[in-house]
Amino acid sequence: MVGSGAVGSFYGAHLAQAGAEVTMLCRSDYAVVKRDGITIVSIDPTTAARQTRQFRPYRVIDHIGAYADTADVILVALKVLPEIDTAALIAPAVQAQHTRILLLQNGIDVEKPLAAAFPQHEILSGLAFVCLNRVAAGMIHHLGYGRVTLGRYPTGSSVIAQRLAELFQASAIPAQLSPQIGRDRWQKLIWNAPFNPLSVLGNATTHDILRCADSARLAAEIMAEVITIAQTEGHLFGPELIAKNLEDTRNMAPYRTSMLVDHQSGRPMEIDAILGRPLRIAQEKGLKVPRLATLHALLQLLSHAVTTRR
Amino acid sequence: MVGSGAVGSFYGAHLAQAGAEVTMLCRSDYAVVKRDGITIVSIDPTTAARQTRQFRPYRVIDHIGAYADTADVILVALKVLPEIDTAALIAPAVQAQHTRILLLQNGIDVEKPLAAAFPQHEILSGLAFVCLNRVAAGMIHHLGYGRVTLGRYPTGSSVIAQRLAELFQASAIPAQLSPQIGRDRWQKLIWNAPFNPLSVLGNATTHDILRCADSARLAAEIMAEVITIAQTEGHLFGPELIAKNLEDTRNMAPYRTSMLVDHQSGRPMEIDAILGRPLRIAQEKGLKVPRLATLHALLQLLSHAVTTRR
Repeated sequence: MVGSGAVGSFYGAHLAQAGAEVTMLCRSDYAVVKRDGITIVSIDPTTAARQTRQFRPYRVIDHIGAYADTADVILVALKVLPEIDTAALIAPAVQAQHTRILLLQNGIDVEKPLAAAFPQHEILSGLAFVCLNRVAAGMIHHLGYGRVTLGRYPTGSSVIAQRLAELFQASAIPAQLSPQIGRDRWQKLIWNAPFNPLSVLGNATTHDILRCADSARLAAEIMAEVITIAQTEGHLFGPELIAKNLEDTRNMAPYRTSMLVDHQSGRPMEIDAILGRPLRIAQEKGLKVPRLATLHALLQLLSHAVTTRR
Repeated sequence: MVGSGAVGSFYGAHLAQAGAEVTMLCRSDYAVVKRDGITIVSIDPTTAARQTRQFRPYRVIDHIGAYADTADVILVALKVLPEIDTAALIAPAVQAQHTRILLLQNGIDVEKPLAAAFPQHEILSGLAFVCLNRVAAGMIHHLGYGRVTLGRYPTGSSVIAQRLAELFQASAIPAQLSPQIGRDRWQKLIWNAPFNPLSVLGNATTHDILRCADSARLAAEIMAEVITIAQTEGHLFGPELIAKNLEDTRNMAPYRTSMLVDHQSGRPMEIDAILGRPLRIAQEKGLKVPRLATLHALLQLLSHAVTTRR
């Protein structure tokens, strides 16, 4: 498991619980995880009841060169940031022909550089629908959901995708195989593209966004812009998805998006994965998506201004 | 002078310095201003040199009913907020036929409700180009500029406009008479509509906004949207104004806009005056201004979310 943030720690713990030998690649939290393992605290949003589980990784390493085994699957649960070259980072561990790579990340086209760097290897792609918060090194709060969708990149399935889904299921993670994970990434983006930026720029939960008539309408208009871009990439979504997303979000507990949590914690935001990439596709295709472009510019400004102040 | 915020205090002090008998209508800071008067600290942005002046108003009152004189001019220097009914607020003091009303406020069409409420009275309209900060009750920091443009509403000039301009000039405030103050309001809005919202949403100074390529381009695009709306109202501005605004702003000292200062101080922002009104005109005329609408929705969300949290 490359990445010991909230997603890597949470799903690493679950895979280990199901019997997998999970080596964790850590950075800043190496010492803590090596000594104490990882603690997952599941918190019920309505009752505030807590359930705590400990996860001791099979091994903990602080750089990829320390990996001495032959991995069946390298899972990548890093944030998608322009400064991270995932292919270069994992290359030393991608030895055997049978090593598969599973990307458990947000955004579209995250698989492209991996498929280019490792053309002989099977690339798997997954999406996590989960509310997590890393509150300290080795300490993850799980606030809801957990479902995983995964499939072979660019389309189809495989034996190992099936096996991973079974492992997730065995550890109480609803997992579904998708024959068209690329389309699923666009579908998730249609939710992420409005709700993540609006939560940051409005300092708002999902419910704040829906309660304010202007921002609820803006969220719907941004979804429509992303649907237009997805269409030029061959993924058709009808306008009923917009109403469904709004309705589903209304029925969720009020939620601080991962981008808002990142911003409030002073960590970099996934601006490029969630806005920059679809925007570049729109520009290439000559599509006008002024709202998406406005959000992108405002988040760029916010992250630059914050950086400048430090 | 109705309003003892930064603008009212600063220009009230200057008019008094030139010999006018200035009664200040105060609210929360009544006791402090009554006892100590108002202190204006002018700070040179490059040398940080300070020059302090004291201003003792002719009279200080805490409600309009306490006004016992006959005003030549009622100056209004209140924020433009939907919850403030300026006409009702000043009505008790608008007695004599010769009482004029001068609005020293941001935004467009601020004069309309006053002209409707007092059809027999001369309405004057003014714009202040000044960097001020009210740091405490009765304590104003003056960080740069100070120029005033004023004229008769809706167009033309008058004896009293001329006299006010002379008083400002006599107290070192560059003042110019404008025969078309409505047009001048649109011109100021073309600057305010991008820079005020972007400074709040990006937590940025004017220089931060211009340094980030994406937000500098967004600022230009928003100016173009406002120019389009102004055109339907009969005020023509060429695209060269956009380049001039960017260039002039680059040559100013880095500046936190009044909207950013309001937001950081937890005070209401002039969202309606700066974005809501031009947006309503655009909607009436069937104009598409998606960037302006996006900024408006984000600021509405931000102010609602902040209000909700308190």
